Amino acid sequence: MTAKPLQIGLAGLGTVGTGVYETLCRNHELLEARVQMSFEVKRVAVRDLGRPRDVAIDPALLTDDWRTLVEDPDIDIIIELIGGVTDAYELITAALRAHKPVVTGNKALLAERGGELFRLSAETEAPLYFEASCGGGIPIIQSLTASLICNNVERIAGIINGTSNYILSAMERKGVSYEEALSAARRKGYAEADPSLDVNGRDAAHKALILAMLAYGTPVDPRAIAVYGIERVTPVDFQFAHRLGYTIKLLVVIKHHEGSGKLELRVQPSFVPKEHLLANVNGVFNAIAVRGDIVGETIFYGRGAGKNPTASAVIGDVMLAMRDCRHPEHHSGFHPYTQAPELMPAEETVTPYYVRFLVQDRPGVIAAIAAELAKKGIGISAITSTPHGEEEQADSNDLVLLLHACAWGKLKQALREIGNYDSIDRHPVVFRIENFNES
Amino acid sequence: MTAKPLQIGLAGLGTVGTGVYETLCRNHELLEARVQMSFEVKRVAVRDLGRPRDVAIDPALLTDDWRTLVEDPDIDIIIELIGGVTDAYELITAALRAHKPVVTGNKALLAERGGELFRLSAETEAPLYFEASCGGGIPIIQSLTASLICNNVERIAGIINGTSNYILSAMERKGVSYEEALSAARRKGYAEADPSLDVNGRDAAHKALILAMLAYGTPVDPRAIAVYGIERVTPVDFQFAHRLGYTIKLLVVIKHHEGSGKLELRVQPSFVPKEHLLANVNGVFNAIAVRGDIVGETIFYGRGAGKNPTASAVIGDVMLAMRDCRHPEHHSGFHPYTQAPELMPAEETVTPYYVRFLVQDRPGVIAAIAAELAKKGIGISAITSTPHGEEEQADSNDLVLLLHACAWGKLKQALREIGNYDSIDRHPVVFRIENFNES
Repeated sequence: MTAKPLQIGLAGLGTVGTGVYETLCRNHELLEARVQMSFEVKRVAVRDLGRPRDVAIDPALLTDDWRTLVEDPDIDIIIELIGGVTDAYELITAALRAHKPVVTGNKALLAERGGELFRLSAETEAPLYFEASCGGGIPIIQSLTASLICNNVERIAGIINGTSNYILSAMERKGVSYEEALSAARRKGYAEADPSLDVNGRDAAHKALILAMLAYGTPVDPRAIAVYGIERVTPVDFQFAHRLGYTIKLLVVIKHHEGSGKLELRVQPSFVPKEHLLANVNGVFNAIAVRGDIVGETIFYGRGAGKNPTASAVIGDVMLAMRDCRHPEHHSGFHPYTQAPELMPAEETVTPYYVRFLVQDRPGVIAAIAAELAKKGIGISAITSTPHGEEEQADSNDLVLLLHACAWGKLKQALREIGNYDSIDRHPVVFRIENFNES
Repeated sequence: MTAKPLQIGLAGLGTVGTGVYETLCRNHELLEARVQMSFEVKRVAVRDLGRPRDVAIDPALLTDDWRTLVEDPDIDIIIELIGGVTDAYELITAALRAHKPVVTGNKALLAERGGELFRLSAETEAPLYFEASCGGGIPIIQSLTASLICNNVERIAGIINGTSNYILSAMERKGVSYEEALSAARRKGYAEADPSLDVNGRDAAHKALILAMLAYGTPVDPRAIAVYGIERVTPVDFQFAHRLGYTIKLLVVIKHHEGSGKLELRVQPSFVPKEHLLANVNGVFNAIAVRGDIVGETIFYGRGAGKNPTASAVIGDVMLAMRDCRHPEHHSGFHPYTQAPELMPAEETVTPYYVRFLVQDRPGVIAAIAAELAKKGIGISAITSTPHGEEEQADSNDLVLLLHACAWGKLKQALREIGNYDSIDRHPVVFRIENFNES
């Protein structure tokens, strides 16, 4: 044990902050025994001192000015859990400039301004830890940066938004609509009042940017990522998916193309083969599959959000910071080490596809679609219509095609041509199919 | 970058040693960039200098005396991959005494003599790293000791022997016998000429002892573990398992009982509900489910053995050792921090069970079995006979019972009584059922 306990400053006492404070108290003895160092929480910054709290905390610890944490020379480590991007940016940069290591779970900030923050961290030799920014309690950051360090990461594919996975799982299990499943998620506290960042894929995209940065060594431009949410997924698509041996998951896919050196980075609801482990990740759970050139395929599974799982990740980082802060020159935080890779435009990315057209029951419709696809050299691997057990509509019908792998740009052109036909819906439903059998 | 490259001594150039050497060469630049330190392999100890090798290595690097590695003052880190327990013990203790950090994957040695080795590591302040000792490329050691450090581990359940999982998966998929599946595993190189340690559960038990040590803070007595292998699993049991909604996996189960403080530690083929992720871990893959009081359920999946996956784990440790070796007093290796917990005798451990009796088709047989179970207070949750699609035998019949949870000692007594009946096989097949829904 070190003689003087390390002093921790905690900024933010919301859901996760409360989980961190409670766990640091409850499992204090265990933590000190395991890490063989002693520590205490010296000060906790909150927005409003007067607000009633459901955690037992000595009011003398509280301050409503996070600057007192950063300016206190006794505080060794800062935990940033205030959220948002403005104050949090100020807090983190002030702490790094004061040479204090920072632990954060702020994925939006890291996705938007990670480049600046890591540069500052390198300049000031104050490490920045962020296990809690992706995958909740799943140790994906530590695994990518330490355990799997010898691997060229070939591909990452993951379910990293618990709210949208809860909604998709409920739609699948109960056959309900997106709107019904969203209401259920709200009632259970798995969706916020404004769930847009979760369901439109932007939260997953923030996390994908962090994973891509870790895998490829440098912050990636957040504007270049192709993002689609789950709002347009319907029970009909789930029925077709099942019939064809798939389920639908909001997937993040990150791939490095060795030939071109380009980085493919996209977030979208995708068809996943039923027998794949990712297809069996349900409810609010997350899972991230990482394929490395040396280790092969690995998958990390766990609770991707919530008070305690996120607190578990934060505290893992605090303990790393405690070990590292005696020797900042060899800290275990992330250092950018390469130039930003070129991003692959969405039009160039290649997968198989599921396409559902609403077509009028007229002669020649299938012929027209097939001819346009053939013109572009796009192969059809399966074709089917109204899903099993569905009533046929009077005049129009769902026509589903599974297409062989082709560039999205090519398919987009073909769909534009097909949309010119009178009897065919201009806006077919398109999902990518991820078979995970790429070489 | 540090001015002088860190010097690595590699002992052992078998399958994994070759993978480590090749990867340290192939991904050398990537590793140095990521860890921001430079390193080189200074010396490689082999058993036989004259043996032809399928790895390109400068003969000047080779020695047939591992002592030259330990005694070389320039060598900073030793990798032990010579295997066995005698020479490896000598090598590791000599290296620790020379204050050199050691990276090893030697599970048998750690399971048998981990206590001594960790005491010596503490005395000499030379850390011992062993990610490769369990789960191949899966970063389970690092996750348990660092990322999940704030958790009281409530339960670990895992598939941690690739050979036996390959055999069980093949039996399930192809409906073949244990012997046929074992031959197939041998042909594919997934089973050694003498596969006994893999199929009898002892290899999994070694790894379980390491996981228990990490979770509960101290080496555990290897004699106290209850171990059963997969040799008695039959296609008939797979048929019943499917019919009842299960599959069969060789599971390691480690549980801490808060009330009694006792540690439950067992290895046996078990029924796993088909919808559980562990039921979907097939072939040579491993998966380890860890439930912590803070993080909840997590699962780690990947290749549990083989040249490159194991090399990935070894090199992850080497990079940790490189960071740590400048500051051994705060190394990220494991320190025992508590007293050995009392082990729960197998007779006291409680699960539901699957029991298959071979019975003669006589009146009163079911009555007799049911009466003996009732006498001991053991409830029957389901009863069924010959599996679907099987021919009935002339005079005898499979009778399968699913039993509610009870202590193994109680069931053993009941089975002894039942064995006294003439028309009932004295040696029924018994599998535990793991439902993973314990509170």
